[in-house]
Amino acid sequence: MSPHGKKLINNPNDVVTEFIEGLVETCPGLQYLDGFPEVKVVLRADVSSGSYEKVAVISGGGSGHEPAHAGFVGPGMLTAAICGNVFTSPTVNSILAGIRAVTGPKGCLLIVKNYTGDRLNFGLAAEQAKAEGYKVETVIVGDDCALPPPRGVAGRRGLAGTIFVHKIAGAAADAGLSLVEVAAEAKRASEMVGTVGVALSLCTLPGQVTSDRLGPGKMELGLGIHGEPGAAVIDLQPVDVVVSLVLKQILSTEAHYVPITRGSRVVLMINGLGATPLMELMIASGKAIPQLQLEHGLAVDRVYTGSFMTSLDMAGFSISVMKADYSILQRLDAPTKAPCWPVGADGNHPPTKIPVPVPPSRLHHDEPSSRPQELNEQAHILEAAIEASANAVINLRDVLNEWDSKVGDGDCGTTMFRGATTILEDMKKHYPLNDAAATVNEIGCSIGRVMGGTSGVLYDIFCKAAYAKLKEKQSSTVTPKGWVDALEAAIGAVSKYGGASAGYRTLLDALIPACGALQERLAAGDDPLTAFVLSSEAAITGAESTKNMQAQAGRSTYITGDVLSTVPDPGAMAAAAWYRAAALALQNCLQKP
Amino acid sequence: MSPHGKKLINNPNDVVTEFIEGLVETCPGLQYLDGFPEVKVVLRADVSSGSYEKVAVISGGGSGHEPAHAGFVGPGMLTAAICGNVFTSPTVNSILAGIRAVTGPKGCLLIVKNYTGDRLNFGLAAEQAKAEGYKVETVIVGDDCALPPPRGVAGRRGLAGTIFVHKIAGAAADAGLSLVEVAAEAKRASEMVGTVGVALSLCTLPGQVTSDRLGPGKMELGLGIHGEPGAAVIDLQPVDVVVSLVLKQILSTEAHYVPITRGSRVVLMINGLGATPLMELMIASGKAIPQLQLEHGLAVDRVYTGSFMTSLDMAGFSISVMKADYSILQRLDAPTKAPCWPVGADGNHPPTKIPVPVPPSRLHHDEPSSRPQELNEQAHILEAAIEASANAVINLRDVLNEWDSKVGDGDCGTTMFRGATTILEDMKKHYPLNDAAATVNEIGCSIGRVMGGTSGVLYDIFCKAAYAKLKEKQSSTVTPKGWVDALEAAIGAVSKYGGASAGYRTLLDALIPACGALQERLAAGDDPLTAFVLSSEAAITGAESTKNMQAQAGRSTYITGDVLSTVPDPGAMAAAAWYRAAALALQNCLQKP
Repeated sequence: MSPHGKKLINNPNDVVTEFIEGLVETCPGLQYLDGFPEVKVVLRADVSSGSYEKVAVISGGGSGHEPAHAGFVGPGMLTAAICGNVFTSPTVNSILAGIRAVTGPKGCLLIVKNYTGDRLNFGLAAEQAKAEGYKVETVIVGDDCALPPPRGVAGRRGLAGTIFVHKIAGAAADAGLSLVEVAAEAKRASEMVGTVGVALSLCTLPGQVTSDRLGPGKMELGLGIHGEPGAAVIDLQPVDVVVSLVLKQILSTEAHYVPITRGSRVVLMINGLGATPLMELMIASGKAIPQLQLEHGLAVDRVYTGSFMTSLDMAGFSISVMKADYSILQRLDAPTKAPCWPVGADGNHPPTKIPVPVPPSRLHHDEPSSRPQELNEQAHILEAAIEASANAVINLRDVLNEWDSKVGDGDCGTTMFRGATTILEDMKKHYPLNDAAATVNEIGCSIGRVMGGTSGVLYDIFCKAAYAKLKEKQSSTVTPKGWVDALEAAIGAVSKYGGASAGYRTLLDALIPACGALQERLAAGDDPLTAFVLSSEAAITGAESTKNMQAQAGRSTYITGDVLSTVPDPGAMAAAAWYRAAALALQNCLQKP
Repeated sequence: MSPHGKKLINNPNDVVTEFIEGLVETCPGLQYLDGFPEVKVVLRADVSSGSYEKVAVISGGGSGHEPAHAGFVGPGMLTAAICGNVFTSPTVNSILAGIRAVTGPKGCLLIVKNYTGDRLNFGLAAEQAKAEGYKVETVIVGDDCALPPPRGVAGRRGLAGTIFVHKIAGAAADAGLSLVEVAAEAKRASEMVGTVGVALSLCTLPGQVTSDRLGPGKMELGLGIHGEPGAAVIDLQPVDVVVSLVLKQILSTEAHYVPITRGSRVVLMINGLGATPLMELMIASGKAIPQLQLEHGLAVDRVYTGSFMTSLDMAGFSISVMKADYSILQRLDAPTKAPCWPVGADGNHPPTKIPVPVPPSRLHHDEPSSRPQELNEQAHILEAAIEASANAVINLRDVLNEWDSKVGDGDCGTTMFRGATTILEDMKKHYPLNDAAATVNEIGCSIGRVMGGTSGVLYDIFCKAAYAKLKEKQSSTVTPKGWVDALEAAIGAVSKYGGASAGYRTLLDALIPACGALQERLAAGDDPLTAFVLSSEAAITGAESTKNMQAQAGRSTYITGDVLSTVPDPGAMAAAAWYRAAALALQNCLQKP
């Protein structure tokens, strides 16, 4: 949370103990020792000291690197994690408390990141535990590849590669190996892995202000996990370039930080530093893999992407590359219940990952729809109605836009115009007018292709749902009852997916009253044409009544009632207009001699 | 990565496809459809369309919410995720492609967050898929509790609570239930959950600059996941207060967003919005649980803490509370291989989670060490040597500080003085001087208690390792050979945990030459006293030679050679001084008649 150094915390001095309390509440398998504030030890709830029949694997260090280390406690990984204050090594007493709490007859392995404070405190605790009769081994991890090698032991810091050592040692211990064997696997792993980090921002210590060492447009390469300066400040680069720089540094053939050469098999970790979204980490993964394969000649056997060893709220990531063999892969793939070890990264990748082809539609378009040579009587009426409806909408373009500019984004007329003109064009070309259901479906297709916006999709849904209902009848001649049922189904679909009902100030406020009036008149015994024409008056009345409605859906919800009362809803007016035009066209056709 | 809107990406238009490529490389169980850039569908690699014998569960929406939705694809959760561009609903064609790719004879459930674009596009795709003969059900999730209820359907946005619906539907489908049954469980779950978010910063769209709507010291309450404004901007509060406000909003008895009342059982999700470190999320979890229990009278059965439904790089979190019963818990606990569903949250919590007591030391201090009434001959000599050594260090205080101010932090003399004066005091009170090994152990305890700093721990390690070696002999009288072996073991432990060797410009550059000379003289047949005195000259020579050494460990690594050549290493000079003083004291005692 770098901006302004803001954090969602309470007292900065309590962040570590409060973190531990939240963690053990989140994870029923974890527990902590009763020694706050000095002793901050997270341990497996199912391990009790003395009787534990496997080698205990213990790690820890300063806090501020969450989920490391407490999030990796669980069967198959760490047995306990010793948490210091933020960026501060834990005390000898707290390390000793952790050792005593989980170490059984087979002893314990301490995995320590290479920082002076951690080495000394874990070292003294190890010596004292030995004096108490515990079997203790210590492995120190220094995977940093940022600084030139002749800098001495202080130069190689322990970074995210340590997580691999935790997993490998944890799996080896879980397999029942002896302390000497577990320590040997951990030591071997620690010598196989190299890490380099990059940052876009620095971290903010709880209760302090953010350093502004990095300016806009700059990034830092080869940094540690405590906000300490990196090896170089460079201009911000595309992530492709950043990944390339980092991989070249880790795999440098001069420095030879890791025993990896062309042809080696490796595993990869992309580790977020605290404030980096998963999207960006995954992008880096997707770029690192082909670079490792093609530029460095390596086989990438596993990829672990996530935030594992962070630096408070630092924005950036580290990349770790580890030489892998069957034994290491087996340890990495072994199951664990540690909450923060990534799921789904285990197992071999398919030899080549070719995208799955997009499956075809199940509808067989053996022949594309085409306009019949000769139109039957219903087709003539249908064409006249469609033409009249489309022209009604076309004529309303400017007034619809004007209304919409007061209560929406001002393009209702233009959008409807685009749909209506396309319908007229497409009808001449290919509407199968002798099949009323199929024609309704094609109207939806024309709308979906060109109209766009919410109303385009809603009218497409309207036609698709009407089509499905008309198709049920399996007759090319549609009865008045058939049309009413289709109208009702279409209104239902628009309401369901659009989320509006009567009174929401939408096109439904024209169509719902129309459909209601139509059903009512038909039930009362009116002839269908009269009923249709009467119902179109209900559509107009309904649309005009939207002036008095508060908007409940869409953009108009943000407009005040004062403004809304001066104009009707343009979508409702457009719907009333095409409905009314269709009714009048039908009357015109049927009342001809 | 809010500061300056910096992101680790390439072309902002490619973030979603590049994310998907990285995700499927990270997770061998995932695959994507070959339809970039329009069709961005992640699906299970082991499901092939047509033959899939379970209900397919499909979700999706705009991208920018990673890991949602693609990170929840896997056995037991989603079958496919349809990804739109950032904050933009996916197209109907891409949704249809996803439906066709994974839907078998039992049909598919679409889980849609309540945004107009998603409802319409998923709705139209559903209607078209039905027309193609697929069985399709749709459940719309609107878990937002930020806005007052009479706002209509548009007010309740789909937020992180949707993840619970994914999990429950996915587990129900995996259990072999029918489409109608799976849809019913999903719908029921969607009605049980409420969510409210808080943010400390806004998100930055790829390729754009960060909005500065929120100023320093401010936070936003009740916001969405697309950077849209929240219900209120308030002053930054401690997280305790923030959690309390959020929970009161979700559980409001007037608004009644969720059917949760006192006595209900619930599950809790603390969801990071993209740039919030896990430490802060866990702190919020740890605070929400007792508030739910004590203030709202609810039983908290499960807790899920992590970043599940984010808003790019927004700093903040949302809290979701869902009413739970046996059936819902069973679905939440069911195993899944979806990469981003949290591990280790399943299973009942212990009835009360009382911290594990700190285990006692195995060493039995039946009687605390005490100074013997009468000192034997060796004890007299030992006391004289300790006294002389301590006084030598005390006398050097100012000159050590002066040297250290040039090459370190200037407190070497003060630190050593503190240790030496305490040793003199403690020796008078309780050193068991007749037992040399135990006395060495007590010197370590005095140092560890008061000295502090790196040198304090190193001297404590020195004494502990010497003690362990002396104890091996199991005789209260120590031979000259015994002392030499103890010195060698102590030097080895300091080197191992301190990480320094000869020539690193540390205290070892006094002690290693001294130990070497001592061993050499004894091997050559010198009498022990002569050998000790001669070796103390080697200590002085060694310490003075540090002037010519480049620092390899500790703070002095950051000082240039020009400065270093003017002063010896103060730690080495202090070590030489006490060693020399001990030798001369011994000579003085033994050469008395």
